[in-house]
Amino acid sequence: MHKGMDVISALQFSRSDIEFLISVAEDLRRVVERGGSLDIAKGRIMFTAFFEPSTRTRLSFQFAMTRLGGVVVDLGPEEVSSMAKGESPEDTLRTVDGYGPDLIVVRHREPGFAAKAAEICRAPVINAGDGYNEHPTQALLDVYTIWRVFGRVDGVRVGLMGDLKYGRTISSLSYALSNFRDVEIHFISPRELQPREEVLRKLDERRVRYEFHEKPDEVLERLDVLYVTRLQKERMKPEEYERLKGSYVITYEYLKKFRRIPVIMHPLPRVWELTPDVDVLPQAMYFEQARNGLYMRMALIKTILGL
Amino acid sequence: MHKGMDVISALQFSRSDIEFLISVAEDLRRVVERGGSLDIAKGRIMFTAFFEPSTRTRLSFQFAMTRLGGVVVDLGPEEVSSMAKGESPEDTLRTVDGYGPDLIVVRHREPGFAAKAAEICRAPVINAGDGYNEHPTQALLDVYTIWRVFGRVDGVRVGLMGDLKYGRTISSLSYALSNFRDVEIHFISPRELQPREEVLRKLDERRVRYEFHEKPDEVLERLDVLYVTRLQKERMKPEEYERLKGSYVITYEYLKKFRRIPVIMHPLPRVWELTPDVDVLPQAMYFEQARNGLYMRMALIKTILGL
Amino acid sequence: MHKGMDVISALQFSRSDIEFLISVAEDLRRVVERGGSLDIAKGRIMFTAFFEPSTRTRLSFQFAMTRLGGVVVDLGPEEVSSMAKGESPEDTLRTVDGYGPDLIVVRHREPGFAAKAAEICRAPVINAGDGYNEHPTQALLDVYTIWRVFGRVDGVRVGLMGDLKYGRTISSLSYALSNFRDVEIHFISPRELQPREEVLRKLDERRVRYEFHEKPDEVLERLDVLYVTRLQKERMKPEEYERLKGSYVITYEYLKKFRRIPVIMHPLPRVWELTPDVDVLPQAMYFEQARNGLYMRMALIKTILGL
Repeated sequence: MHKGMDVISALQFSRSDIEFLISVAEDLRRVVERGGSLDIAKGRIMFTAFFEPSTRTRLSFQFAMTRLGGVVVDLGPEEVSSMAKGESPEDTLRTVDGYGPDLIVVRHREPGFAAKAAEICRAPVINAGDGYNEHPTQALLDVYTIWRVFGRVDGVRVGLMGDLKYGRTISSLSYALSNFRDVEIHFISPRELQPREEVLRKLDERRVRYEFHEKPDEVLERLDVLYVTRLQKERMKPEEYERLKGSYVITYEYLKKFRRIPVIMHPLPRVWELTPDVDVLPQAMYFEQARNGLYMRMALIKTILGL
Repeated sequence: MHKGMDVISALQFSRSDIEFLISVAEDLRRVVERGGSLDIAKGRIMFTAFFEPSTRTRLSFQFAMTRLGGVVVDLGPEEVSSMAKGESPEDTLRTVDGYGPDLIVVRHREPGFAAKAAEICRAPVINAGDGYNEHPTQALLDVYTIWRVFGRVDGVRVGLMGDLKYGRTISSLSYALSNFRDVEIHFISPRELQPREEVLRKLDERRVRYEFHEKPDEVLERLDVLYVTRLQKERMKPEEYERLKGSYVITYEYLKKFRRIPVIMHPLPRVWELTPDVDVLPQAMYFEQARNGLYMRMALIKTILGL
Repeated sequence: MHKGMDVISALQFSRSDIEFLISVAEDLRRVVERGGSLDIAKGRIMFTAFFEPSTRTRLSFQFAMTRLGGVVVDLGPEEVSSMAKGESPEDTLRTVDGYGPDLIVVRHREPGFAAKAAEICRAPVINAGDGYNEHPTQALLDVYTIWRVFGRVDGVRVGLMGDLKYGRTISSLSYALSNFRDVEIHFISPRELQPREEVLRKLDERRVRYEFHEKPDEVLERLDVLYVTRLQKERMKPEEYERLKGSYVITYEYLKKFRRIPVIMHPLPRVWELTPDVDVLPQAMYFEQARNGLYMRMALIKTILGL
């Protein structure tokens, strides 16, 4: 990890990289929570280019940069439509890169787009989601959240639930977890939405232990963390969807049946797969998780800008 | 009134609160008009979340915060559509509140939404319009405008014209005016668009004198201020609308028929109910009124942030 | 040229104005490229109002103001739709002008709109495109690019290709070039898309030498610069369009046929009229041209704000 680096994949981060970022995030958190104001990114410009709509991730990056004293220039949503009129996103990035941003945050529906952007741009590029491929900063904040809750990541048992095939947070989080010892990953999904072969192969190479489950009931009491994501209707056969959807909704009622409730995480936004009545449980960690994202992204920006 | 307070309803403000805010607004105006630059909100972040489209109010708050040296992060318009995809505005606010804004400005079509937002959020919340319910900062700048024109608010006779039933500026302004002595309110509207019962009840409790008129002609010469708002076609029976609409258009021609022309105010934007030929009259105060909004919102932000 | 001036037309700029702006741009470039941070616009606010969608020009102005240490408040794209609901852009500008921006950048599809805006607003107004009429800051950066490549503008032979009738960059660049000695302009377009009479008349008054060509082949080897713009289908008869379009596409293959390839410029965004395979040529200057826009706009803002 070094000043000026691009962040394209969670595979880039070693255990010590992640531990370093966590310690920077904790330092920044202490300053911010004491009400301190930071000025270390003064005069620096971050360009955020979300070619796919985003609110949460975009705002999280904007707050992170602003909290460090820097400035954000945003591509704006209209670009997405002006894309239709013809300019390629590559041309847009190359042009704006010429305006001299210190950092570019990019999201695009095309897997591999962030890597391409990093080749085009002189400024360091952070991948804020490239299609179903990866979302590495989400993985960093997820691991940070686990670390904060358990005081360690080694030995943690994580259930990943929902659309594991096309969920970019799933692959990135699995990769990030693969740096830690004795982690168990439990993939909970309909069979046709299990993780892609390329993801499993990488986990095999890294000797990560994982199991498959078709329903959360089978494994819930053995989990430290249940990481909920959405099951997307358009990705399943209608009859399959109808048969299975009920099994992928986490409610207060459902969780109360178990003797031991794991920590509940979710990358948000949630729709119907995690009902608001769960929010009152002490195990509901998703809003805290989002908040951790602020500090982790501040840590990443600080590191990349060499501040 | 105190640091960290939420601003949900014009009913929160006592006479002395309003007088205090006016004096702060006047102080800030002097600094800005002398070309001075303010830095007192340095390092502070205001989050603006307009779930209903807005230009004027959003820009007014953005300029106010910027003029104080603070930074604005905006939800952006795309969120409105991403709402459709599923996340509740409550989740959005709760998440962004976790990023630590110093102040949240919120608009939403649901009456009572701002109060709900204030419960969810740790940061102070300013209501920038909750459906037909209230728009308290508009009321503050309206009263400030009256104060600047007449040197007082006591004894002023104000005609409120247009859709009084669903106009949120109408209820908030009436409440704000109720703090002052001998104010007369003249409600000028079709019968079916008179203020809601709950609004009138509050004015009764506060012993405000008010009268109803169906047309402005009946009362125009007795007014100090004619406050024009739009009559919305979709809120009336078609035949009623056709019969009455001509009576709710204020033109130069129309005003010139009277011996005494009141000060003309309008929350803007205007459509056809107030024609541009009125702009040349010395009584046309609506652009000045918008400008007063800048200073009043600066005063409010300064007070809430305790600067 | 003076502090507080409006920038409406390229005709405003004399040769010495342009040379002055180029020297300021070069100074600013040196500071920025050395990694220096500027703070001279601290506390100043630029308001960008693009009533017609724009990405490149808007972002270029935003980066320019930000690089100078100032702040940008943007109208936002939603206003364009809220326009439909009724408020006139004149009202919008007059209102926001009252909030005290130090500078207003405006784009609108109506020719002459920027001049009207300058009359309405107390703040200086920069025309960022008014319909088919003018785009003076584009002309300044185009001339700056020519100056950087050739070390002079006098005597340069420029081919302007594409829709010359409705292309606002065409008229503005022609006007800017008219300040220099022995410039030759070659208009390359279908006959029905030659520049408007009013434009040619102004060039005649200023004794600019120009010729018309129907295809680039006729003149390409005589050019120092080929300035490519888009041919818009909707502006031509279908049969004409089909007959001619092939002649207005600049590809690597096409250029390689000539012994001498001119510098290729383009205001961007490009669509099909300039293929990406041209980017590898040393003569491809369009991304550098966009980058020059940053410094030229910084120079202009600095001059107008009197910094």
